[in-house]
Amino acid sequence: MPKQVDHGKRRESIARALWRVVEQRGATHLSLREVAQEAGISLGQLQHYFGSRAELLAFAADLAGEQSALRVRQALSALGEAPHPRQVLRAMLVELLPLHADSRATSRMSAAYVLEALHDEEVRVRAGSGLIQGRALVEQVVRQAITGGLIAPECDPVVETDLLLALTGFATLLELGVVEPAAALAAIDRHLDRLFGGGTTGRRGDGVTG
Amino acid sequence: MPKQVDHGKRRESIARALWRVVEQRGATHLSLREVAQEAGISLGQLQHYFGSRAELLAFAADLAGEQSALRVRQALSALGEAPHPRQVLRAMLVELLPLHADSRATSRMSAAYVLEALHDEEVRVRAGSGLIQGRALVEQVVRQAITGGLIAPECDPVVETDLLLALTGFATLLELGVVEPAAALAAIDRHLDRLFGGGTTGRRGDGVTG
Repeated sequence: MPKQVDHGKRRESIARALWRVVEQRGATHLSLREVAQEAGISLGQLQHYFGSRAELLAFAADLAGEQSALRVRQALSALGEAPHPRQVLRAMLVELLPLHADSRATSRMSAAYVLEALHDEEVRVRAGSGLIQGRALVEQVVRQAITGGLIAPECDPVVETDLLLALTGFATLLELGVVEPAAALAAIDRHLDRLFGGGTTGRRGDGVTG
Repeated sequence: MPKQVDHGKRRESIARALWRVVEQRGATHLSLREVAQEAGISLGQLQHYFGSRAELLAFAADLAGEQSALRVRQALSALGEAPHPRQVLRAMLVELLPLHADSRATSRMSAAYVLEALHDEEVRVRAGSGLIQGRALVEQVVRQAITGGLIAPECDPVVETDLLLALTGFATLLELGVVEPAAALAAIDRHLDRLFGGGTTGRRGDGVTG
Protein backbone atom coordinates (compact mmCIF):
# COMPACT_ATOMS: atom_id res chain seq x y z
CA MET A 1 0.00 0.00 0.00
CA PRO A 2 1.25 3.49 -0.71
CA LYS A 3 2.75 5.27 2.26
CA GLN A 4 0.32 8.18 1.88
CA VAL A 5 -2.66 5.97 2.72
CA ASP A 6 -0.96 4.54 5.79
CA HIS A 7 -0.17 8.04 6.98
CA GLY A 8 -3.79 9.17 6.54
CA LYS A 9 -5.13 6.03 8.20
CA ARG A 10 -2.72 6.42 11.11
CA ARG A 11 -3.79 10.02 11.61
CA GLU A 12 -7.43 8.94 11.61
CA SER A 13 -6.80 6.16 14.12
CA ILE A 14 -5.01 8.65 16.41
CA ALA A 15 -7.94 11.07 16.09
CA ARG A 16 -10.33 8.28 17.04
CA ALA A 17 -8.16 7.48 20.05
CA LEU A 18 -8.56 11.14 21.03
CA TRP A 19 -12.34 10.82 20.73
CA ARG A 20 -12.25 7.80 23.04
CA VAL A 21 -10.20 9.73 25.60
CA VAL A 22 -12.67 12.63 25.39
CA GLU A 23 -15.63 10.26 25.61
CA GLN A 24 -14.35 8.15 28.47
CA ARG A 25 -12.21 10.45 30.55
CA GLY A 26 -13.28 13.90 29.42
CA ALA A 27 -11.55 16.77 27.68
CA THR A 28 -10.40 18.44 30.87
CA HIS A 29 -7.41 16.21 31.33
CA LEU A 30 -6.64 15.74 27.67
CA SER A 31 -2.93 15.32 26.97
CA LEU A 32 -1.00 14.03 23.97
CA ARG A 33 0.60 11.39 26.19
CA GLU A 34 -2.85 10.04 27.09
CA VAL A 35 -3.96 9.98 23.45
CA ALA A 36 -0.75 8.18 22.41
CA GLN A 37 -1.35 5.56 25.10
CA GLU A 38 -4.95 5.07 23.94
CA ALA A 39 -3.75 4.76 20.32
CA GLY A 40 -1.15 2.19 21.40
CA ILE A 41 1.81 4.22 20.16
CA SER A 42 4.57 6.22 21.78
CA LEU A 43 4.34 9.96 22.32
CA GLY A 44 7.19 10.36 19.82
CA GLN A 45 5.28 8.40 17.18
CA LEU A 46 2.19 10.53 17.76
CA GLN A 47 4.25 13.68 17.38
CA HIS A 48 5.45 12.35 14.04
CA TYR A 49 1.84 12.55 12.81
CA PHE A 50 0.71 15.67 14.66
CA GLY A 51 3.13 18.50 15.37
CA SER A 52 1.07 20.02 18.15
CA ARG A 53 -1.89 19.44 20.44
CA ALA A 54 -3.79 22.13 18.50
CA GLU A 55 -3.19 20.36 15.18
CA LEU A 56 -4.43 17.03 16.56
CA LEU A 57 -7.51 18.63 18.14
CA ALA A 58 -8.40 20.45 14.89
CA PHE A 59 -8.00 17.23 12.89
CA ALA A 60 -10.09 15.24 15.38
CA ALA A 61 -12.81 17.91 15.38
CA ASP A 62 -12.84 18.09 11.56
CA LEU A 63 -13.09 14.31 11.41
CA ALA A 64 -16.02 14.45 13.86
CA GLY A 65 -17.72 16.98 11.58
CA GLU A 66 -17.10 14.81 8.51
CA GLN A 67 -18.44 11.73 10.29
CA SER A 68 -21.60 13.62 11.31
CA ALA A 69 -22.07 14.83 7.72
CA LEU A 70 -21.56 11.27 6.46
CA ARG A 71 -24.18 9.92 8.88
CA VAL A 72 -26.62 12.63 7.76
CA ARG A 73 -26.03 11.69 4.10
CA GLN A 74 -26.58 8.01 4.92
CA ALA A 75 -29.79 8.83 6.81
CA LEU A 76 -30.99 10.92 3.85
CA SER A 77 -30.24 8.14 1.35
CA ALA A 78 -32.33 5.80 3.47
CA LEU A 79 -35.27 8.18 3.00
CA GLY A 80 -35.27 7.47 -0.73
CA GLU A 81 -35.40 9.97 -3.57
CA ALA A 82 -36.77 13.46 -2.96
CA PRO A 83 -37.49 13.06 0.76
CA HIS A 84 -39.89 15.51 2.43
CA PRO A 85 -38.02 18.57 3.85
CA ARG A 86 -39.46 17.75 7.23
CA GLN A 87 -37.73 14.36 7.14
CA VAL A 88 -34.50 15.97 5.96
CA LEU A 89 -34.48 18.44 8.86
CA ARG A 90 -35.35 15.68 11.32
CA ALA A 91 -32.51 13.47 10.06
CA MET A 92 -30.04 16.36 10.35
CA LEU A 93 -31.07 17.19 13.93
CA VAL A 94 -31.18 13.57 15.08
CA GLU A 95 -27.67 12.80 13.78
CA LEU A 96 -26.24 15.82 15.64
CA LEU A 97 -27.59 14.61 18.98
CA PRO A 98 -25.89 11.99 21.19
CA LEU A 99 -28.62 9.39 20.63
CA HIS A 100 -26.36 6.47 19.70
CA ALA A 101 -22.71 5.52 20.27
CA ASP A 102 -21.35 7.03 17.01
CA SER A 103 -23.11 10.35 17.35
CA ARG A 104 -22.27 10.50 21.06
CA ALA A 105 -18.56 10.30 20.28
CA THR A 106 -18.74 13.08 17.67
CA SER A 107 -21.08 15.17 19.82
CA ARG A 108 -18.68 14.99 22.78
CA MET A 109 -15.73 15.78 20.55
CA SER A 110 -17.58 18.83 19.22
CA ALA A 111 -18.52 19.98 22.73
CA ALA A 112 -14.89 19.71 23.81
CA TYR A 113 -13.79 21.67 20.75
CA VAL A 114 -16.33 24.42 21.47
CA LEU A 115 -14.97 24.76 24.98
CA GLU A 116 -11.46 24.92 23.55
CA ALA A 117 -12.68 27.57 21.10
CA LEU A 118 -13.72 29.96 23.87
CA HIS A 119 -10.15 30.95 24.63
CA ASP A 120 -8.49 30.33 21.27
CA GLU A 121 -9.47 32.63 18.41
CA GLU A 122 -8.12 30.28 15.71
CA VAL A 123 -10.15 27.37 17.06
CA ARG A 124 -13.18 29.64 17.42
CA VAL A 125 -13.05 30.67 13.76
CA ARG A 126 -12.55 27.07 12.67
CA ALA A 127 -15.35 25.65 14.84
CA GLY A 128 -17.61 28.55 13.87
CA SER A 129 -17.05 28.08 10.14
CA GLY A 130 -18.00 24.39 10.41
CA LEU A 131 -21.24 25.37 12.12
CA ILE A 132 -21.89 28.14 9.59
CA GLN A 133 -21.63 25.57 6.77
CA GLY A 134 -24.11 23.29 8.55
CA ARG A 135 -26.36 26.29 9.17
CA ALA A 136 -26.38 27.11 5.44
CA LEU A 137 -27.56 23.57 4.60
CA VAL A 138 -30.42 23.78 7.10
CA GLU A 139 -31.43 27.24 5.83
CA GLN A 140 -31.47 25.95 2.24
CA VAL A 141 -33.94 23.20 3.20
CA VAL A 142 -36.11 25.69 5.12
CA ARG A 143 -36.16 28.11 2.17
CA GLN A 144 -37.08 25.35 -0.27
CA ALA A 145 -39.90 24.25 2.04
CA ILE A 146 -41.22 27.83 2.17
CA THR A 147 -41.00 28.16 -1.62
CA GLY A 148 -42.71 24.81 -2.01
CA GLY A 149 -45.57 25.87 0.26
CA LEU A 150 -44.69 23.31 2.96
CA ILE A 151 -43.84 25.98 5.52
CA ALA A 152 -46.05 29.06 5.83
CA PRO A 153 -44.74 31.90 3.61
CA GLU A 154 -44.75 34.43 6.46
CA CYS A 155 -42.10 32.38 8.31
CA ASP A 156 -38.66 34.00 8.36
CA PRO A 157 -36.18 31.38 7.05
CA VAL A 158 -33.29 32.85 9.09
CA VAL A 159 -35.25 32.79 12.35
CA GLU A 160 -36.60 29.29 11.71
CA THR A 161 -33.11 28.02 10.87
CA ASP A 162 -31.71 29.49 14.08
CA LEU A 163 -34.48 27.83 16.10
CA LEU A 164 -33.80 24.44 14.50
CA LEU A 165 -30.06 24.73 15.23
CA ALA A 166 -30.72 25.81 18.81
CA LEU A 167 -32.47 22.48 19.39
CA THR A 168 -29.00 20.90 19.45
CA GLY A 169 -29.28 22.10 23.08
CA PHE A 170 -30.87 18.68 23.62
CA ALA A 171 -27.30 17.30 23.56
CA THR A 172 -26.61 18.55 27.09
CA LEU A 173 -30.05 17.54 28.38
CA LEU A 174 -29.55 14.02 26.99
CA GLU A 175 -25.99 13.69 28.29
CA LEU A 176 -27.07 14.62 31.81
CA GLY A 177 -30.12 12.38 31.73
CA VAL A 178 -32.48 15.36 32.20
CA VAL A 179 -34.36 14.35 29.04
CA GLU A 180 -34.68 10.79 27.71
CA PRO A 181 -34.02 10.05 24.00
CA ALA A 182 -37.73 9.36 23.31
CA ALA A 183 -38.71 12.70 24.89
CA ALA A 184 -36.12 14.61 22.84
CA LEU A 185 -37.42 13.00 19.64
CA ALA A 186 -41.02 13.79 20.64
CA ALA A 187 -40.09 17.44 21.24
CA ILE A 188 -38.26 17.68 17.88
CA ASP A 189 -41.33 16.19 16.17
CA ARG A 190 -43.54 18.68 17.99
CA HIS A 191 -41.39 21.56 16.78
CA LEU A 192 -41.46 20.24 13.20
CA ASP A 193 -45.23 19.70 13.45
CA ARG A 194 -45.67 23.35 14.29
CA LEU A 195 -43.19 24.52 11.67
CA PHE A 196 -44.77 22.45 8.89
CA GLY A 197 -48.33 22.22 10.15
CA GLY A 198 -48.73 25.70 11.49
CA GLY A 199 -51.04 25.02 14.41
CA THR A 200 -50.73 24.37 18.12
CA THR A 201 -52.55 21.09 17.98
CA GLY A 202 -49.57 19.04 17.03
CA ARG A 203 -51.31 17.74 13.94
CA ARG A 204 -49.09 16.68 11.08
CA GLY A 205 -49.55 18.01 7.63
CA ASP A 206 -47.89 19.89 4.88
CA GLY A 207 -50.62 22.45 4.27
CA VAL A 208 -50.17 26.14 4.88
CA THR A 209 -52.20 27.79 7.58
CA GLY A 210 -52.38 31.51 7.94
CA MET B 1 -16.08 39.91 61.56
CA PRO B 2 -16.66 36.26 62.44
CA LYS B 3 -14.21 33.83 60.93
CA GLN B 4 -17.05 31.85 59.30
CA VAL B 5 -17.96 34.79 57.02
CA ASP B 6 -14.36 35.27 55.95
CA HIS B 7 -14.12 31.59 55.13
CA GLY B 8 -17.27 31.71 52.99
CA LYS B 9 -16.17 34.87 51.24
CA ARG B 10 -12.76 33.47 50.51
CA ARG B 11 -14.29 30.32 49.04
CA GLU B 12 -16.50 32.45 46.82
CA SER B 13 -13.59 34.59 45.65
CA ILE B 14 -11.63 31.43 44.78
CA ALA B 15 -14.63 30.09 42.86
CA ARG B 16 -14.84 33.36 40.93
CA ALA B 17 -11.13 33.09 40.15
CA LEU B 18 -11.90 29.65 38.72
CA TRP B 19 -14.66 31.16 36.55
CA ARG B 20 -12.16 33.71 35.21
CA VAL B 21 -9.67 30.96 34.36
CA VAL B 22 -12.43 29.00 32.61
CA GLU B 23 -13.65 32.12 30.81
CA GLN B 24 -10.25 33.37 29.71
CA ARG B 25 -8.14 30.27 29.25
CA GLY B 26 -10.69 27.49 29.05
CA ALA B 27 -11.47 24.47 31.15
CA THR B 28 -9.13 22.14 29.27
CA HIS B 29 -6.03 23.28 31.08
CA LEU B 30 -7.70 23.94 34.41
CA SER B 31 -5.42 23.28 37.36
CA LEU B 32 -5.63 24.24 41.01
CA ARG B 33 -2.27 26.01 40.69
CA GLU B 34 -3.67 28.23 37.94
CA VAL B 35 -6.76 29.06 39.99
CA ALA B 36 -4.64 29.89 43.04
CA GLN B 37 -2.52 32.22 40.92
CA GLU B 38 -5.64 33.93 39.54
CA ALA B 39 -7.04 34.28 43.09
CA GLY B 40 -3.73 35.78 44.26
CA ILE B 41 -3.06 33.10 46.85
CA SER B 42 -0.72 30.16 47.15
CA LEU B 43 -1.68 26.63 46.18
CA GLY B 44 -1.41 25.68 49.86
CA GLN B 45 -3.85 28.43 50.85
CA LEU B 46 -6.31 27.30 48.18
CA GLN B 47 -6.08 23.73 49.42
CA HIS B 48 -6.97 25.00 52.89
CA TYR B 49 -10.35 26.06 51.46
CA PHE B 50 -10.92 23.24 48.96
CA GLY B 51 -9.65 19.76 49.69
CA SER B 52 -9.77 18.63 46.07
CA ARG B 53 -10.18 19.81 42.50
CA ALA B 54 -13.61 18.09 42.42
CA GLU B 55 -14.75 19.97 45.53
CA LEU B 56 -13.71 23.34 44.07
CA LEU B 57 -15.36 22.58 40.70
CA ALA B 58 -18.61 21.53 42.38
CA PHE B 59 -18.64 24.68 44.53
CA ALA B 60 -17.89 26.91 41.52
CA ALA B 61 -20.63 25.23 39.46
CA ASP B 62 -23.14 25.52 42.32
CA LEU B 63 -22.24 29.19 42.69
CA ALA B 64 -22.77 29.68 38.94
CA GLY B 65 -26.21 28.08 39.29
CA GLU B 66 -27.07 30.30 42.25
CA GLN B 67 -25.92 33.42 40.40
CA SER B 68 -28.06 32.48 37.38
CA ALA B 69 -31.08 31.90 39.63
CA LEU B 70 -30.44 35.25 41.34
CA ARG B 71 -30.31 37.06 37.98
CA VAL B 72 -33.58 35.39 36.93
CA ARG B 73 -35.23 36.52 40.19
CA GLN B 74 -33.96 40.07 39.63
CA ALA B 75 -35.23 40.05 36.04
CA LEU B 76 -38.61 38.79 37.26
CA SER B 77 -38.84 41.49 39.96
CA ALA B 78 -38.22 44.09 37.27
CA LEU B 79 -41.32 42.79 35.46
CA GLY B 80 -43.52 43.91 38.37
CA GLU B 81 -46.19 41.90 40.17
CA ALA B 82 -47.82 38.97 38.42
CA PRO B 83 -45.81 39.10 35.18
CA HIS B 84 -47.17 37.32 32.09
CA PRO B 85 -45.89 33.71 31.88
CA ARG B 86 -44.49 34.54 28.48
CA GLN B 87 -42.30 37.23 30.06
CA VAL B 88 -41.28 34.84 32.85
CA LEU B 89 -40.16 32.15 30.38
CA ARG B 90 -38.34 34.74 28.27
CA ALA B 91 -36.48 36.11 31.30
CA MET B 92 -35.44 32.60 32.35
CA LEU B 93 -34.10 31.70 28.88
CA VAL B 94 -32.33 35.01 28.37
CA GLU B 95 -30.48 34.81 31.70
CA LEU B 96 -29.21 31.32 30.87
CA LEU B 97 -27.61 32.49 27.63
CA PRO B 98 -24.20 34.16 27.34
CA LEU B 99 -25.67 37.54 26.31
CA HIS B 100 -23.77 39.69 28.82
CA ALA B 101 -20.56 39.41 30.84
CA ASP B 102 -22.18 37.95 34.00
CA SER B 103 -24.21 35.32 32.22
CA ARG B 104 -21.27 34.49 29.94
CA ALA B 105 -19.13 33.62 32.95
CA THR B 106 -21.80 31.37 34.49
CA SER B 107 -22.69 29.86 31.11
CA ARG B 108 -19.06 28.93 30.42
CA MET B 109 -18.66 27.54 33.93
CA SER B 110 -21.76 25.38 33.38
CA ALA B 111 -20.51 24.17 29.99
CA ALA B 112 -17.18 23.18 31.55
CA TYR B 113 -19.00 21.35 34.34
CA VAL B 114 -21.16 19.46 31.85
CA LEU B 115 -18.05 18.29 30.02
CA GLU B 116 -16.55 17.23 33.35
CA ALA B 117 -19.80 15.40 34.11
CA LEU B 118 -19.50 13.15 31.06
CA HIS B 119 -16.84 11.00 32.66
CA ASP B 120 -17.63 11.46 36.34
CA GLU B 121 -20.86 9.94 37.62
CA GLU B 122 -20.93 12.06 40.80
CA VAL B 123 -20.58 15.27 38.80
CA ARG B 124 -23.18 14.03 36.31
CA VAL B 125 -25.76 13.45 39.04
CA ARG B 126 -24.98 16.82 40.60
CA ALA B 127 -25.13 18.78 37.33
CA GLY B 128 -28.23 16.85 36.26
CA SER B 129 -30.08 17.56 39.52
CA GLY B 130 -29.43 21.30 39.10
CA LEU B 131 -30.92 21.17 35.61
CA ILE B 132 -33.85 19.06 36.80
CA GLN B 133 -34.68 21.74 39.39
CA GLY B 134 -34.58 24.43 36.71
CA ARG B 135 -36.69 22.22 34.46
CA ALA B 136 -39.34 21.90 37.19
CA LEU B 137 -39.62 25.70 37.47
CA VAL B 138 -40.09 26.08 33.70
CA GLU B 139 -42.67 23.29 33.62
CA GLN B 140 -44.60 24.93 36.45
CA VAL B 141 -44.87 28.17 34.46
CA VAL B 142 -45.93 26.26 31.31
CA ARG B 143 -48.60 24.31 33.24
CA GLN B 144 -49.98 27.50 34.81
CA ALA B 145 -50.14 29.14 31.38
CA ILE B 146 -52.07 26.15 30.02
CA THR B 147 -54.44 26.19 32.99
CA GLY B 148 -54.88 29.95 32.56
CA GLY B 149 -55.74 29.54 28.88
CA LEU B 150 -52.61 31.38 27.70
CA ILE B 151 -51.17 28.29 26.00
CA ALA B 152 -53.48 26.00 24.00
CA PRO B 153 -54.86 23.19 26.20
CA GLU B 154 -53.79 20.48 23.75
CA CYS B 155 -50.12 21.38 24.29
CA ASP B 156 -48.18 18.81 26.27
CA PRO B 157 -46.48 20.67 29.16
CA VAL B 158 -43.59 18.17 29.30
CA VAL B 159 -42.85 18.44 25.58
CA GLU B 160 -43.13 22.24 25.60
CA THR B 161 -40.83 22.46 28.64
CA ASP B 162 -38.24 20.27 26.93
CA LEU B 163 -38.37 22.45 23.81
CA LEU B 164 -37.88 25.63 25.85
CA LEU B 165 -34.88 24.12 27.68
CA ALA B 166 -33.37 22.89 24.41
CA LEU B 167 -33.20 26.51 23.25
CA THR B 168 -30.24 26.93 25.62
CA GLY B 169 -28.48 25.45 22.56
CA PHE B 170 -28.19 29.10 21.51
CA ALA B 171 -25.30 29.33 24.02
CA THR B 172 -22.91 27.51 21.64
CA LEU B 173 -24.18 29.38 18.57
CA LEU B 174 -23.65 32.71 20.36
CA GLU B 175 -20.21 31.77 21.71
CA LEU B 176 -18.98 30.82 18.23
CA GLY B 177 -20.50 33.89 16.59
CA VAL B 178 -22.76 31.76 14.38
CA VAL B 179 -25.81 33.65 15.68
CA GLU B 180 -25.80 37.26 16.89
CA PRO B 181 -27.51 38.18 20.19
CA ALA B 182 -30.33 40.06 18.42
CA ALA B 183 -31.03 37.04 16.20
CA ALA B 184 -31.11 34.67 19.20
CA LEU B 185 -33.60 36.95 20.97
CA ALA B 186 -35.72 37.21 17.80
CA ALA B 187 -35.80 33.41 17.52
CA ILE B 188 -36.76 33.00 21.18
CA ASP B 189 -39.54 35.54 20.70
CA ARG B 190 -40.70 33.66 17.62
CA HIS B 191 -40.87 30.41 19.57
CA LEU B 192 -42.80 32.10 22.40
CA ASP B 193 -45.11 33.74 19.83
CA ARG B 194 -46.01 30.33 18.50
CA LEU B 195 -46.33 28.76 21.95
CA PHE B 196 -48.57 31.53 23.27
CA GLY B 197 -50.18 32.70 20.04
CA GLY B 198 -50.62 29.38 18.33
CA GLY B 199 -50.17 30.42 14.71
CA THR B 200 -47.35 30.45 12.22
CA THR B 201 -47.69 34.14 11.49
CA GLY B 202 -45.58 35.31 14.39
CA ARG B 203 -48.43 37.42 15.73
CA ARG B 204 -48.37 38.05 19.46
CA GLY B 205 -51.31 37.33 21.61
CA ASP B 206 -52.46 35.38 24.58
CA GLY B 207 -55.57 33.91 23.07
CA VAL B 208 -56.04 30.26 22.41
CA THR B 209 -56.25 29.04 18.84
CA GLY B 210 -57.23 25.52 17.98
